[in-house]
Amino acid sequence: METTTLIPANSLMTATPEEGRQLAIKMARLIIKTTQPDAQIRENLRAVYANDAMLLLAVGHTVAIEFSTIAAANDYWRSPR
Amino acid sequence: METTTLIPANSLMTATPEEGRQLAIKMARLIIKTTQPDAQIRENLRAVYANDAMLLLAVGHTVAIEFSTIAAANDYWRSPR
Amino acid sequence: METTTLIPANSLMTATPEEGRQLAIKMARLIIKTTQPDAQIRENLRAVYANDAMLLLAVGHTVAIEFSTIAAANDYWRSPR
Amino acid sequence: METTTLIPANSLMTATPEEGRQLAIKMARLIIKTTQPDAQIRENLRAVYANDAMLLLAVGHTVAIEFSTIAAANDYWRSPR
Amino acid sequence: METTTLIPANSLMTATPEEGRQLAIKMARLIIKTTQPDAQIRENLRAVYANDAMLLLAVGHTVAIEFSTIAAANDYWRSPR
Amino acid sequence: METTTLIPANSLMTATPEEGRQLAIKMARLIIKTTQPDAQIRENLRAVYANDAMLLLAVGHTVAIEFSTIAAANDYWRSPR
Repeated sequence: METTTLIPANSLMTATPEEGRQLAIKMARLIIKTTQPDAQIRENLRAVYANDAMLLLAVGHTVAIEFSTIAAANDYWRSPR
Repeated sequence: METTTLIPANSLMTATPEEGRQLAIKMARLIIKTTQPDAQIRENLRAVYANDAMLLLAVGHTVAIEFSTIAAANDYWRSPR
Repeated sequence: METTTLIPANSLMTATPEEGRQLAIKMARLIIKTTQPDAQIRENLRAVYANDAMLLLAVGHTVAIEFSTIAAANDYWRSPR
Repeated sequence: METTTLIPANSLMTATPEEGRQLAIKMARLIIKTTQPDAQIRENLRAVYANDAMLLLAVGHTVAIEFSTIAAANDYWRSPR
Repeated sequence: METTTLIPANSLMTATPEEGRQLAIKMARLIIKTTQPDAQIRENLRAVYANDAMLLLAVGHTVAIEFSTIAAANDYWRSPR
Repeated sequence: METTTLIPANSLMTATPEEGRQLAIKMARLIIKTTQPDAQIRENLRAVYANDAMLLLAVGHTVAIEFSTIAAANDYWRSPR
């Protein structure tokens, strides 16, 4: 099985919208991790954006874009699975 | 029933555009909540962005993106239900 | 009839592109109103963003996103009505 | 004929991509005009953003979004007219 | 032949993704040129954004949006030409 | 074979979502490289954005947009290959 570092399970498909949303958060975080591989620095920066209104909104903005792709991939979870 | 923390009712489907818009607001807020779980800090930050023109516009920006996904999921509420 | 506070007439459908554009502006404003319900504060912030180049551009940015959703909903007003 | 203030000719249809791009610029400007109706203030702000790298990029960003809607409306001008 | 100042060759169609990407860069630059017609000022601003991390990222952001439109126009270059 | 500087292999097609995500990162970086060709300056700026929360989020934002295009091009990797 291929090791992935950017998309868990190497798939955009999820069983539910909730899981799609979780995937969007993970995908957004993994880009940050790839760009800044040092865990300690990421931890410090996390403390910064979790306490800054503009940065929190920026997190939400990127997750919204990632989610729009995942939702389209899953045909918006319209059909029963 | 699965407990969800990111999408109420675990569905993008809503009966009306108004409810779709409410869902977009909730989804945007739940990402903030996941990123900053401390209710008191969120309350303080809310006071910040509700009184800052740029931050208010940023809230509107993210809700617009979330809503575009929800609207597509509901086929823009074109058909009568 | 359901009272709506986020989408006038609870519909994305408009007769013309001009009306679609007006709806985009209203929808963007109603998110601001929901986030900051105090009319006096909104009036003060409006004076801020109407006189600041970056904020004016941010208003235009969000309206552009809202409009893209409304335009798709109306199939870009291609067919005669 | 209906007077429009937000979309010239009240249509997203254009004969060519170049005209579509011109429409995108006009639509972006008309939102600014609606938000700030004072021509003198707009003129002053224009001098600001035409000389600031970030603001110029923000203009381009919004035009890109407006254009994506217009291009889709015109089916990307694929078919001969 | 119509003179164009916003889209080279007045078309979104390109033979390859690489050429589509080049077109996205040109279209983004031509909006800047239209907004700030003075070549010397543009040259000065270019020195600013080529040396500022946030501005470089903003350039990439706008090119990404322009490219998404061009890619859709070319059906993602899926079919052989 | 055509030399490309903006899109590796001159194609948006990838075998997996993981590879699509890698392509999105590369495409975003190649726009930066084209805008700022000096490797030493890019290296210095990289140190800036890898240690700044807002800039890291801006990287993630642009990658999300590039990826949405790549994902659509690959029909979200729905079909087996």
